[in-house]
Amino acid sequence: MSDLRRRLPAGPPGEVWIGDDAAVLRPPDGPLLLAADALVEGLHWDPALTGPDDAGWKALAVNVSDVAAMGGRPLHAVVTVTVPPGRAGDLDRLYDGLEAAAKALDCPIVGGDLTGGPVLVVTVAVTGTVDGAPVLRSGARPGDLLLVTGPLGAASAALRERRASPRLTPRVAEGTAARLGGATAMLDLSDGLLLDVRRLAQASGVGVVVGGVPVAKGATLEEALGGGEDYELLLAAPSGHDVRDAFEEVRLPPPVVIGRCTADPGERRLGLGPLPEGGWEHDW
Amino acid sequence: MSDLRRRLPAGPPGEVWIGDDAAVLRPPDGPLLLAADALVEGLHWDPALTGPDDAGWKALAVNVSDVAAMGGRPLHAVVTVTVPPGRAGDLDRLYDGLEAAAKALDCPIVGGDLTGGPVLVVTVAVTGTVDGAPVLRSGARPGDLLLVTGPLGAASAALRERRASPRLTPRVAEGTAARLGGATAMLDLSDGLLLDVRRLAQASGVGVVVGGVPVAKGATLEEALGGGEDYELLLAAPSGHDVRDAFEEVRLPPPVVIGRCTADPGERRLGLGPLPEGGWEHDW
Repeated sequence: MSDLRRRLPAGPPGEVWIGDDAAVLRPPDGPLLLAADALVEGLHWDPALTGPDDAGWKALAVNVSDVAAMGGRPLHAVVTVTVPPGRAGDLDRLYDGLEAAAKALDCPIVGGDLTGGPVLVVTVAVTGTVDGAPVLRSGARPGDLLLVTGPLGAASAALRERRASPRLTPRVAEGTAARLGGATAMLDLSDGLLLDVRRLAQASGVGVVVGGVPVAKGATLEEALGGGEDYELLLAAPSGHDVRDAFEEVRLPPPVVIGRCTADPGERRLGLGPLPEGGWEHDW
Repeated sequence: MSDLRRRLPAGPPGEVWIGDDAAVLRPPDGPLLLAADALVEGLHWDPALTGPDDAGWKALAVNVSDVAAMGGRPLHAVVTVTVPPGRAGDLDRLYDGLEAAAKALDCPIVGGDLTGGPVLVVTVAVTGTVDGAPVLRSGARPGDLLLVTGPLGAASAALRERRASPRLTPRVAEGTAARLGGATAMLDLSDGLLLDVRRLAQASGVGVVVGGVPVAKGATLEEALGGGEDYELLLAAPSGHDVRDAFEEVRLPPPVVIGRCTADPGERRLGLGPLPEGGWEHDW
């Protein structure tokens, strides 16, 4: 970790960041959130389309997105990298992206590990907290609306056209607004709406009827429904204006209603038909 | 992570472990410790000698060792695994070892990620806390004794003889006793005494004179000095009996004096000669 150590700032007084066996941090007053994700070159990013700097950004941002999906805000990150021999330049660029994301997303890197390996793997673990109760996947109730924080399918469309995706901005402010506005369940859309809406329904024990979804410019409806990596938030909230008001209060575009939760826990509908299978099942 | 989800327990009331975007945990009252380490098959363990279950154990244990080296105790772990196609059996065994370590070391796994990849990589991040002030690497003072918690070189000797090393037991109780006994600096011996004693001296701005070291049965003096992966603790403490008394009070074998800290920050001696270079520099 000596490489990162030279680049990264020391912590505030009373904290220890890079350079000891473990980082020493002030604990949050509220709940401690903890999440981790690994990105593998060639699998989670195509090196022909995405540079190491964008991969570094993404590795941190997907973790911050997990914290946003609880209605929380990030605190700190630890980063481990395995890097093949002869790729010191790529490693530098990877750290460039990690550092840029850490600054932009207010989630400083406080430690980690650097080692060799046959393939570039970036693993990030983040801590976070919530100034209130976290929004789980399991709280949706029959009658709740289903909403998303933005149009879907852009990442899939970019992949189809072999373009780099724009850098992901985790929906931290949106997640907080959703929590304050009374969201009952929430997750981030990493694996495609079709799969993630099933996860929300399953965790909450409700049925779901999806009416339609906002499709990103240049994307197809199929990409909006089944494509992954949009990292918009999917949330359930009681009907009424509270959630939309909470977004407007902080000048965020209001979330878009895409359907509702129903009382039959086995119901999975899209329009008048069954909800198709789909999405990226990269859990095993 | 669905595989691990089926195997791992739910958290206590008020906490959320596996299954949501992030784990939700009660924050510690004291400082929050955070560390992460990645182990790569073929690099950090030889699959001909070490099975996936022992690799899983080791991945969790080396992180707990980092917490022990602060004088702390572990709280929770998140685990990310990249696994090549066709190795579901090895993955199961890896999780066996992770779970066994989580139970034995009192550090439950509360989340993580599972993904494909060309090589088996296990990355663990742990949280911990300290019931008091953490022991950094940087607090040693001239005149302090240098001590280790046990004989060194066993891991290197096992490697030379192409034997599996016994499962690592992180020195959590020893780290706590050292902290309570007034240790001024501490780290875990992951990369060989020669290198790690330089790190302590460098961080503390002191010189070091090493007299001799306890050599593990079957190991050579060279292995005890330069071999890595012993995971005993190296500590500095004022001369007197306080540290040894603290170990005896909890019925731990007392740490062994191997040298002392001096006022010349450039001094690095072994016996009457200079401290040799050595150790495993696998930071880049």
